Amino acid sequence: MTSSVDCIVPSILDIHRAAERIVGWAKQTPVMTSQGLDRLSGAQIYFKCENFQRTGSFKMRGASNAILQIPDALCERGVVTHSSGNHAAALACAAQRRGIPAYIVMPHNAPLAKRETAAGYGAKIELCDPTMAAREEAWRRVHAATNATLVHPYDDSAVIAGQGTAALELLMEAPDLEAIIAPVSGGGLLSGTAIAAKATLPNIQVFGAEPEMADDATRSFRSGQLEPLLSSNTIADGLRATLCQRTLNIILAHVDDLQTVSETQIIEATKLIWRYLKIVAEPSGAVPLALVLAQPSRFAGRRVGLIVSGGNLDLERLPWQM
Amino acid sequence: MTSSVDCIVPSILDIHRAAERIVGWAKQTPVMTSQGLDRLSGAQIYFKCENFQRTGSFKMRGASNAILQIPDALCERGVVTHSSGNHAAALACAAQRRGIPAYIVMPHNAPLAKRETAAGYGAKIELCDPTMAAREEAWRRVHAATNATLVHPYDDSAVIAGQGTAALELLMEAPDLEAIIAPVSGGGLLSGTAIAAKATLPNIQVFGAEPEMADDATRSFRSGQLEPLLSSNTIADGLRATLCQRTLNIILAHVDDLQTVSETQIIEATKLIWRYLKIVAEPSGAVPLALVLAQPSRFAGRRVGLIVSGGNLDLERLPWQM
Repeated sequence: MTSSVDCIVPSILDIHRAAERIVGWAKQTPVMTSQGLDRLSGAQIYFKCENFQRTGSFKMRGASNAILQIPDALCERGVVTHSSGNHAAALACAAQRRGIPAYIVMPHNAPLAKRETAAGYGAKIELCDPTMAAREEAWRRVHAATNATLVHPYDDSAVIAGQGTAALELLMEAPDLEAIIAPVSGGGLLSGTAIAAKATLPNIQVFGAEPEMADDATRSFRSGQLEPLLSSNTIADGLRATLCQRTLNIILAHVDDLQTVSETQIIEATKLIWRYLKIVAEPSGAVPLALVLAQPSRFAGRRVGLIVSGGNLDLERLPWQM
Repeated sequence: MTSSVDCIVPSILDIHRAAERIVGWAKQTPVMTSQGLDRLSGAQIYFKCENFQRTGSFKMRGASNAILQIPDALCERGVVTHSSGNHAAALACAAQRRGIPAYIVMPHNAPLAKRETAAGYGAKIELCDPTMAAREEAWRRVHAATNATLVHPYDDSAVIAGQGTAALELLMEAPDLEAIIAPVSGGGLLSGTAIAAKATLPNIQVFGAEPEMADDATRSFRSGQLEPLLSSNTIADGLRATLCQRTLNIILAHVDDLQTVSETQIIEATKLIWRYLKIVAEPSGAVPLALVLAQPSRFAGRRVGLIVSGGNLDLERLPWQM
């Protein structure tokens, strides 16, 4: 329960082992390119399309890697987590597949589509207020009642190692990338991405992209210590969590820079991905493209890999219609 | 100019030649599957994703195959066509690539996104009323002024052969299909699909799927002669054209059945494709899935290939928001 005290961080070897372990559980997703978006950005962009991942986001990688390492003896008690949605669906899916119960604490403002998905995999959903404190309190209560194993959405070495497998696959298809950008929320994806990328290509630059409206990671990166999340009312609903000490440590060690983008830039980038790539990406997944478009001086003329983190959203309420 | 008088129809050899000819011009698009949609339909569905095709629809196949066969001596005069949008963009793109002028007659109710796309490839756009008569009159006028070569959107053997390459690719990836369904408008895609499928797998069943609101092809198939289009106010804006004698002949010879689906079924199928496959398909491209879902007695338990014909639409006005 005190997982952030033991700050174990995964090595590149852990990420390679995760990649082997999750074969058949998570998919190898396609890498897409678009002449139109390259023209628009001036960069040469490789989109790692985790919207096509099982359960609709990269979270399936970390959840599978964690669930597959739970000892048989503990399986009956199940797993518990808190998540704004995508980790919930992924954990529920992986748990169902391994045949163990899943308990999910979810903020009541999570998109309905995400709630329904997790419930569809047989998870027991517990709603809470959309604050980190309320989430923590709720999952501790569930844990006390069930003794289920916590699979934290990002403060967990196995989860981080799993998330890193997306970058590993991307670098296998595009081995000459000069930069790679992941969205940042709790920092699990960015941490895994940075460890995988720097170990594979020491000269690659790794960036985190974050909504201005939930900019705790960027402020923490600047100050070198965990800064509180002051607001989280961003359209990128997958990016409303805060860093933990473990992910901050990894990010400080391996990430070149964190930058924020505005809500308008996120919405525009989402629409551009839909229009040019013909894929459904959620706003969180478009945050890296928003950064490329916002900072041409940094990215134009370079080969840049972006993690499109997921594709789950309410189709009735599109980002540009809210 | 009297292309429907010489009713040349392509053979399977023409389709194989087209496949070789258009390499580098049209893409080999992915075939996708979805456990969720298989569960929902009871069928085992293979989606040929022409929304990922260059210019966003299968039309790039036929347009490229036609443009590549224009003699050098005629190139300077350019090409002319009429189209509700996707053929226009494809012809404009292929013409630009070959370095020849393109003149496009387009109904004024074509989606703005489609108009902009064609114009973006340097085509000269001429708007007309949304009737077949107005279209014909307008392109004849352009033809008289320019002497440009007509590349009809479907009444053209080279175009039909090009469209058939999508089914050829689909059957290479899913060689044990029991049925294949294409949307039908002017009948070019369905004709090419039927010739390719029946020559490759003689026992496969080939179906055309058409909006109830533009059901001329289904009525023509039943009566054995060209029936007029009585209305074309369907949300599937790519399916508002009518068969010609050439495509009717092919369809009567090679297609097992044509069936219609309602507007509600089309909209629901479009949303399901977005939600489960995480791809942007236009309503026309969802018409085959609408048919599978509408007729479980015909398709459940079978391996069915669907041509998702394109992914171009105004993202500001989604089908389920109109």
